[in-house]
Amino acid sequence: MKVALDVMGGDFAPSVTIEGAIQAAQQGTHALLVGRAPDLEAELAKHPGAPTFEIVHAPDVVEMHEHPANAVRHKRESSINVAMRLVKDGAVGALFSAGNSGAVMASALFTLGRIEGVHRPAIGGVLPLLHSRVFLLDVGANADCDAHNLLQFAQMGVAYMRHIYGTQNPRVGLVSNGEEETKGNALVQATVPLLKESGLNFIGNVEGKDVTRGACDVAVTDGFTGNVMLKLAEGMQELILDLVREAIMSKPHYKLAGAVLRPGLRAAGRRLDYTEYGGAPLVGVIGPVFIGHGRSNAKAIANGLLTAACPATATLIPALASAVASSAG
Amino acid sequence: MKVALDVMGGDFAPSVTIEGAIQAAQQGTHALLVGRAPDLEAELAKHPGAPTFEIVHAPDVVEMHEHPANAVRHKRESSINVAMRLVKDGAVGALFSAGNSGAVMASALFTLGRIEGVHRPAIGGVLPLLHSRVFLLDVGANADCDAHNLLQFAQMGVAYMRHIYGTQNPRVGLVSNGEEETKGNALVQATVPLLKESGLNFIGNVEGKDVTRGACDVAVTDGFTGNVMLKLAEGMQELILDLVREAIMSKPHYKLAGAVLRPGLRAAGRRLDYTEYGGAPLVGVIGPVFIGHGRSNAKAIANGLLTAACPATATLIPALASAVASSAG
Repeated sequence: MKVALDVMGGDFAPSVTIEGAIQAAQQGTHALLVGRAPDLEAELAKHPGAPTFEIVHAPDVVEMHEHPANAVRHKRESSINVAMRLVKDGAVGALFSAGNSGAVMASALFTLGRIEGVHRPAIGGVLPLLHSRVFLLDVGANADCDAHNLLQFAQMGVAYMRHIYGTQNPRVGLVSNGEEETKGNALVQATVPLLKESGLNFIGNVEGKDVTRGACDVAVTDGFTGNVMLKLAEGMQELILDLVREAIMSKPHYKLAGAVLRPGLRAAGRRLDYTEYGGAPLVGVIGPVFIGHGRSNAKAIANGLLTAACPATATLIPALASAVASSAG
Repeated sequence: MKVALDVMGGDFAPSVTIEGAIQAAQQGTHALLVGRAPDLEAELAKHPGAPTFEIVHAPDVVEMHEHPANAVRHKRESSINVAMRLVKDGAVGALFSAGNSGAVMASALFTLGRIEGVHRPAIGGVLPLLHSRVFLLDVGANADCDAHNLLQFAQMGVAYMRHIYGTQNPRVGLVSNGEEETKGNALVQATVPLLKESGLNFIGNVEGKDVTRGACDVAVTDGFTGNVMLKLAEGMQELILDLVREAIMSKPHYKLAGAVLRPGLRAAGRRLDYTEYGGAPLVGVIGPVFIGHGRSNAKAIANGLLTAACPATATLIPALASAVASSAG
């Protein structure tokens, strides 16, 4: 399936996005590059052995810290908007952007629209665990949510895990401050009855450590809590690996052992690495849109493109639509 | 300063709480033991070399999963209530319990009452970082909060860090889904102006990874988000150390290097270990009350007692009271 890459999006664009596109092409996925053609060509010229890419020129660029809705409205010919229209027109099957995520969302809502019945699209984050993964949503699209939003996040999350990862009967957990049903804030308490009646495989409330232990396949929460969780998980990973590094450097014989172990520790770090996972899907809009971390490196961009290009992506939208429709009916 | 230990509180009480009391005594802090006297004496008899303890008999026990307010109301002579009355009467200077935290809170509110002007007491968690620590509150007392609650949490958190850890001009961060002022849920957006006008050293909104990087000394949030964060941090620590362990076991030469490194890795893990930190203070009630993790081991109990017994604890309540009063005036 053909994927559009927003080459201008990301903290290190366009050089790193182009590198990512080249890496993905070496693995068989040729993205359609969207951005300022002269910039793109200049970057490509730095890689003489690079494959040829289709390029679609987009004169405008949405900067990382611009106001999302304004930028999308006023920069009609930004790479984000142009790429989104390629999805809308069917010229590509999916889009990947590591750009201003608010702008990607605004553009998706404006250009593609919402799947019928969906109140609020959500951003889903795939967190790698020891022997599995968990799909956490919303991780940032909606800071304030109601119970019905959370129900739809659960439905879409289940459909996503089933459709993209083939997870059988995905277990849904509702993030809370305690497993007991009496725990939870007002939002959680209003959501529990909806999830119980939803026909989903709802396992109840889950705490932060249940999520990391793989107690559920889909962890549902509002976009405020989910975003805090995602970034805290990232921060804890950094903190703990720093501590391990300090421990290794603290004694000469540890340094030696550390040198032997280094490849193993790196491999361990990689298993949690967001760059191994390819972008966070924006679920609920009419088109497969994947949002990458602003700080994405070339590998993260490449993996984002590979995920977006998966054959299953082609039928993702009907799968999400039917998951939401089934409960509305 | 004399500290009461709720010997009946905790998943492994009373055996582990007694062991903790013995460890603390060996370090010079003799707790006053509160609980069912026959059980306490039977446990103490298992440690023939143990020092002598003062015991206060409390016939009732609040179980970990009882409804907090009901248990506190109906089990008047529970160890939690009896210990709380010892604080109230000045027989001890502080209390430590690893029991039902809701019941400890309910008992504290009922028996000790709130510091004047405090709307909601909060539970504060001290998270160890690479080269510092952060005081996160609320970590579970109030699932739903308003902006004024969060302002008071900030004031009390600052007073706590200054008073107990001697932190100069503690930096306050407001937990949010993005550092920009435009980010945040409705609660965060309502709280920002209050913190700006508070006279506190407010550094703005902080994301999960800013918290772990030590961007602030006091991280303020509602008790729902704070609790999710605390338990996620715990879960991530477990997950990452499991990954490191798996990496070490994956190859024979890694195993050897891992054996050399083991003490160093253990020391690294200990630096993040909640057992090194002594219980979470319940700030806002008239008396120093420290709540331990239900799963506390003997060392965690001992450290909880040592923290509670610190000389600074004796003047904690006036420090908290004046921090809250200064803004009310």
